[in-house]
Amino acid sequence: MDRAVALTGFMGVGMGGSMPAAAAAASLVLFAPSRSSSSPRTLRRPSLLPLRRATVAPSRPRIPRLVAVRANVAIEKETPEEERPETFLRAADGHHGAASASVRARFERMIREVQDEVCAAIEAADGGGKFKEDVWSRPGGGGGISRVLQDGGVWEKAGVNVSVVYGVMPPEAYRAAKGEAVSGNGNSSVKAGPVPFFAAGISSVLHPKNPFAPTLHFNYRYFETDATKDAPGAPRQWWFGGGTDFTPAYIFEEDVKHFHRVQKEACDKFDPSFYPRFKKWCDDYFFIKHRGERRGLGGIFFDDLNDYDQEMLLAFSTECARSVVRAYVPIIERRKDTPFTEQHKAWQQLRRGRYVEFNLVYDRGTTFGLKTGGRIESILVSLPLTARWEYDHKPEEGSEEWKLLDACINPKEWI
Amino acid sequence: MDRAVALTGFMGVGMGGSMPAAAAAASLVLFAPSRSSSSPRTLRRPSLLPLRRATVAPSRPRIPRLVAVRANVAIEKETPEEERPETFLRAADGHHGAASASVRARFERMIREVQDEVCAAIEAADGGGKFKEDVWSRPGGGGGISRVLQDGGVWEKAGVNVSVVYGVMPPEAYRAAKGEAVSGNGNSSVKAGPVPFFAAGISSVLHPKNPFAPTLHFNYRYFETDATKDAPGAPRQWWFGGGTDFTPAYIFEEDVKHFHRVQKEACDKFDPSFYPRFKKWCDDYFFIKHRGERRGLGGIFFDDLNDYDQEMLLAFSTECARSVVRAYVPIIERRKDTPFTEQHKAWQQLRRGRYVEFNLVYDRGTTFGLKTGGRIESILVSLPLTARWEYDHKPEEGSEEWKLLDACINPKEWI
Repeated sequence: MDRAVALTGFMGVGMGGSMPAAAAAASLVLFAPSRSSSSPRTLRRPSLLPLRRATVAPSRPRIPRLVAVRANVAIEKETPEEERPETFLRAADGHHGAASASVRARFERMIREVQDEVCAAIEAADGGGKFKEDVWSRPGGGGGISRVLQDGGVWEKAGVNVSVVYGVMPPEAYRAAKGEAVSGNGNSSVKAGPVPFFAAGISSVLHPKNPFAPTLHFNYRYFETDATKDAPGAPRQWWFGGGTDFTPAYIFEEDVKHFHRVQKEACDKFDPSFYPRFKKWCDDYFFIKHRGERRGLGGIFFDDLNDYDQEMLLAFSTECARSVVRAYVPIIERRKDTPFTEQHKAWQQLRRGRYVEFNLVYDRGTTFGLKTGGRIESILVSLPLTARWEYDHKPEEGSEEWKLLDACINPKEWI
Repeated sequence: MDRAVALTGFMGVGMGGSMPAAAAAASLVLFAPSRSSSSPRTLRRPSLLPLRRATVAPSRPRIPRLVAVRANVAIEKETPEEERPETFLRAADGHHGAASASVRARFERMIREVQDEVCAAIEAADGGGKFKEDVWSRPGGGGGISRVLQDGGVWEKAGVNVSVVYGVMPPEAYRAAKGEAVSGNGNSSVKAGPVPFFAAGISSVLHPKNPFAPTLHFNYRYFETDATKDAPGAPRQWWFGGGTDFTPAYIFEEDVKHFHRVQKEACDKFDPSFYPRFKKWCDDYFFIKHRGERRGLGGIFFDDLNDYDQEMLLAFSTECARSVVRAYVPIIERRKDTPFTEQHKAWQQLRRGRYVEFNLVYDRGTTFGLKTGGRIESILVSLPLTARWEYDHKPEEGSEEWKLLDACINPKEWI
């Protein structure tokens, strides 16, 4: 994490970034403002205003600011907004409505449309719960929209966040990300100064109440570096990352097959190698090492992807993100009203405990965000409403609980 | 954690070790066998026998061994035992019954007596629940006793573990622990070989059901290095560590004062500086950085303590451990039957969520244990049976919940 800690606190729903390199930044920019960013060079307002447009009085008068975390990246202090702006981009990046718009602009448009689409589908299926929205921006560009639905009819907790971040990364992180070979001559061409970057992403975790209805997580992000002032000819770097994975407490083969089939269909439109490769990447990433188990039944996951045509990867990320509703909501419709016992609920709660373990111990976005002062409530909205830990619980061999556990320990090819 | 990761997987109930140095090892030896220790030089039985003397059949035939974790320390594979041995010490360390026995022997005797005493008091107060016991040993000496009471009348989860470990630490860890100055001449006298060590400890977390009854954690440990074969004249090092802290969801001043008063009384018998110093150390250690909150209302905590007379520190640790029952059980007796509402329970569950956050994100013993393949169920018995996370929950100013939170954010002097 040496490189990562040089970036500062702005984070989002536990998004599963593998972050082997500077694309780390992309998976880290998810998707919430920091309440405690330290030493921002352009900080204009030392405001401690709550981010929410809440009418309640601040409830912790004696409570100090969250511990300030040192960071080397200049990210401006966020400002709550009353209205969603049409774009969080800087003017120089162009308007995102134009067909010929930049990749930045088109990616932002896509994630905001997907946020609307997913939230609308969740509210419709929930039949009662409504998302609560927080909008924020930064004076020099960037910002985000956080939406959380809690204790609805179907979901106990559902978070769908988007963010756009303009930041600056240390040159070491940039060099590590692109590989020294890129600098050409062995003498780094960018050693003189920090590297501006742009990152945008959508991140979501959806925890339903019914133990037969699965939890869903998805996250898609785009990362770009600018040419540095010190090295105007240095190539601009970009990466895509993301994935969609699901976590049932009980296996319904038709659900698992449907979910994976949708992922494969999205992948196959672009490259037949994508699904097997990203399915395995997902199984490998969402691994709870100390348990020897995956947290769920996988899906797809990729990071640092830039070795394909940029337009193709933008279209691929878009296809994946646009597949979320049809991959997930039909499963929820089938399972949301299934009768269940206390035992079923207790097992779901134990699996939720595993979700907590993965997110707090292994998820790099979450652990980084916690340690660098990201907006805690946005980061931890990925945690379930409730979870359970029983000492030495072992499902009976052959039981439905055992089958789920077995599939988490020994990942299967579902389609 | 560079030094720590050179030690291997044997761990226990999240015990709050600050582990700044090689006493790391002492706080790590708490208190359970590894199911997955890798490359043990003296491994005699590659057995995968369950540790419990359970009559149920192994329930996961296809489940592989937990991921093997590389470690540089040779710790033998543990063996389940039918009976508690009189001592886990090697014969050379003497019998622990003798009044003139070694510090090792007397410390083991003390922690085993305290385990019996605490378990008896908990069972008596619980009025129904019984501890389930797992005993294990290692062929070359060392072993432990794990006891867990789950879903009792008063406690939802209570774990009390003791262990004794003989291990070998890398010379770098030893040097870092004692400071290079100890080796005298700038040329390290112990660079040639690994350093044998001994560690013993008791560790416990007790989570009651009633939201007005506090959670208790305590842990006392003793650590010693042997002279190395390569440097027979090298001084033997030793350290004590431990503490007792409590975590209510609601403040009853008489409870908090009683708890801290007992800690202070134990400290004052030895040194008037102990209570203020170890009270602050406790507040500093059990800090959930990303929340800016302590997990509870503190107590005492110390580590790497060796700058006092060894006999005095043995007596001090003994006094602290023997104070647990009278510090805690009277509070439980007062609160265990207090009527409560769903709101009270929900707040307790939110605070349990904080407990989980601290233990999984910050507690060094827990995080080290998880990453090095300790016995997971023994490590995570520190987690509550159930926990809860609500998005952006803020207690109403002036409410009882707010008062607790305020005291976790701004530690107070209670006595």
